[in-house]
Amino acid sequence: MSEPVVVDAMGGDHGPAETVAGAVLARRDRGVPVVLIGQAGRIRAELARHGAAGEIDVVHAEDAIPMTERGTGAVSAGQTSLAVGCDLVRQGAASAFVSAGSTGAVVSCAIRGIGRAEGVLRPALAVALPSLTGGATVLIDAGATADPTPEMIAQFALLGASYAQLVLDVADPSVGLLSIGSEPGKGNRLTRRAEALLPGLPFRFHGLVEGHDVLAGVVDVIATDGFTGNVVLKNVEGSVRAALTLMARAGAADPEALREVAGRYDPETHGGAALLGLDGTVVVAHGSSRARTIARACEVAHGLAGGGVVARVRDHLAVEPVR
Amino acid sequence: MSEPVVVDAMGGDHGPAETVAGAVLARRDRGVPVVLIGQAGRIRAELARHGAAGEIDVVHAEDAIPMTERGTGAVSAGQTSLAVGCDLVRQGAASAFVSAGSTGAVVSCAIRGIGRAEGVLRPALAVALPSLTGGATVLIDAGATADPTPEMIAQFALLGASYAQLVLDVADPSVGLLSIGSEPGKGNRLTRRAEALLPGLPFRFHGLVEGHDVLAGVVDVIATDGFTGNVVLKNVEGSVRAALTLMARAGAADPEALREVAGRYDPETHGGAALLGLDGTVVVAHGSSRARTIARACEVAHGLAGGGVVARVRDHLAVEPVR
Repeated sequence: MSEPVVVDAMGGDHGPAETVAGAVLARRDRGVPVVLIGQAGRIRAELARHGAAGEIDVVHAEDAIPMTERGTGAVSAGQTSLAVGCDLVRQGAASAFVSAGSTGAVVSCAIRGIGRAEGVLRPALAVALPSLTGGATVLIDAGATADPTPEMIAQFALLGASYAQLVLDVADPSVGLLSIGSEPGKGNRLTRRAEALLPGLPFRFHGLVEGHDVLAGVVDVIATDGFTGNVVLKNVEGSVRAALTLMARAGAADPEALREVAGRYDPETHGGAALLGLDGTVVVAHGSSRARTIARACEVAHGLAGGGVVARVRDHLAVEPVR
Repeated sequence: MSEPVVVDAMGGDHGPAETVAGAVLARRDRGVPVVLIGQAGRIRAELARHGAAGEIDVVHAEDAIPMTERGTGAVSAGQTSLAVGCDLVRQGAASAFVSAGSTGAVVSCAIRGIGRAEGVLRPALAVALPSLTGGATVLIDAGATADPTPEMIAQFALLGASYAQLVLDVADPSVGLLSIGSEPGKGNRLTRRAEALLPGLPFRFHGLVEGHDVLAGVVDVIATDGFTGNVVLKNVEGSVRAALTLMARAGAADPEALREVAGRYDPETHGGAALLGLDGTVVVAHGSSRARTIARACEVAHGLAGGGVVARVRDHLAVEPVR
């Protein structure tokens, strides 16, 4: 049996009630081996409510990161559930870490605590956005590395293609590079240099794509730097919300359908942002995640860990680690 | 009387029929002095249809840029309506140039043909996006300068604040810098260096804003580099279209309201993208513009030219032109 996924019981807006329920669901319904980490007393009380005491291992970590510190990056290296969870992954006692804590705190803690996989220059966040064609497009990097080199963006493209294969079941993913025109050579200096590296890598390189292609289902993967990717991710959410708000104000739409469409682009439904390129997989679920979303994040983390997401980077673009 | 606005009669998907009608509307309904440029015979025939022969001056330019060349930047320096129009502005015979040609072709031709205003490092495209609060937010740079320095972004912020005052009638505009977090210091290297330059400039510096703030009406102006700005502009359009398409597919919305909301974020309704920082104002109307949109673009160009949009840049951030 593979190593378990560690679930941060203390992360998220709803605390252990939802995270523990999610872990139980992941184990019982989806066959994912899990371990819970956090304040053991509270976790055990929640497990008992599901009749799951003794069914799932619990690792104690005293400190939770107060939600008021979300996004400040002010995470001490102490006995937080984050720090202990990442440590278990680094030691090889767990295959992956799932948290509904703040993305910034989880990413910075994971980079420090787990470390990069051999041959990977920098980690990247992958998010699967539902597209108009009914599938999904992987946006990578959605915010882990704000100032990548062209070589890092080429690695992000490889990581994204692996994600599309392992999580979205796309056998032969197509990859586009986000830019400001579709003709070859359009873009800024960084994009033009990255564009030269992508042909010949083991995926179908579609060429350049633009901002209006992100939800159109034009490609399976869109590679970009972590600054542009994070701005785009948040702009998708804000723009969809704006359009639906105007429809609601006009009283011209069915409220149930408005909620359904809003839900598709709610960060919670992305199934979690996966931090790829570390020596172990990390999936960040949205802070408002309920049990089902946590369970889905466990399943994604398990699939990525089992599939060897960084193997293609090692085979095709391995580089000496740099500081 | 001020110098006229030159209108490119040959630009746009609908040709002289709509551009000439727009120029007539600008002059008659909005009091904007205009000159038409392009194939004189075709223009005069259209003017006659409106009973406006002799009312508006016509400058002949033989070549139109075929629409198949849109966006390729393959504009010769010959006698195109674009080249002749920009030349009239450079000579001071016209105050501004309005075209519904391709943004890429108009921008590159204008930069070459008109040249930068004294003290301005690089031009920037400003687009006014309607916000949820009922007003508009100026996004600048929306695509003219893909690789700016921090000093250029500070100038874009000043140009954007002038645009908000002159076109949107905002007396005391607030300015945000687009980044990937709202806390000071969040961002990539370029953004962090630009952030240090903005306090102390003659506008209310709001601080950093994020992708989901673009349509929320949080600030009057959002400054960014031309790469990120262009990706965001197109992502807004694509995301709004995606949300409305899903509502339409569900049959859960009034078609009339869907069209109305789509129209708000159609590029055509932005009133044109203004290229600021040159020695003369240039407004690029969308290729699909009809007469009313052309007339509005003429009005915007006239207001910007009369208001001295680059004066604050000269006063506060003037620099020696660099190559």
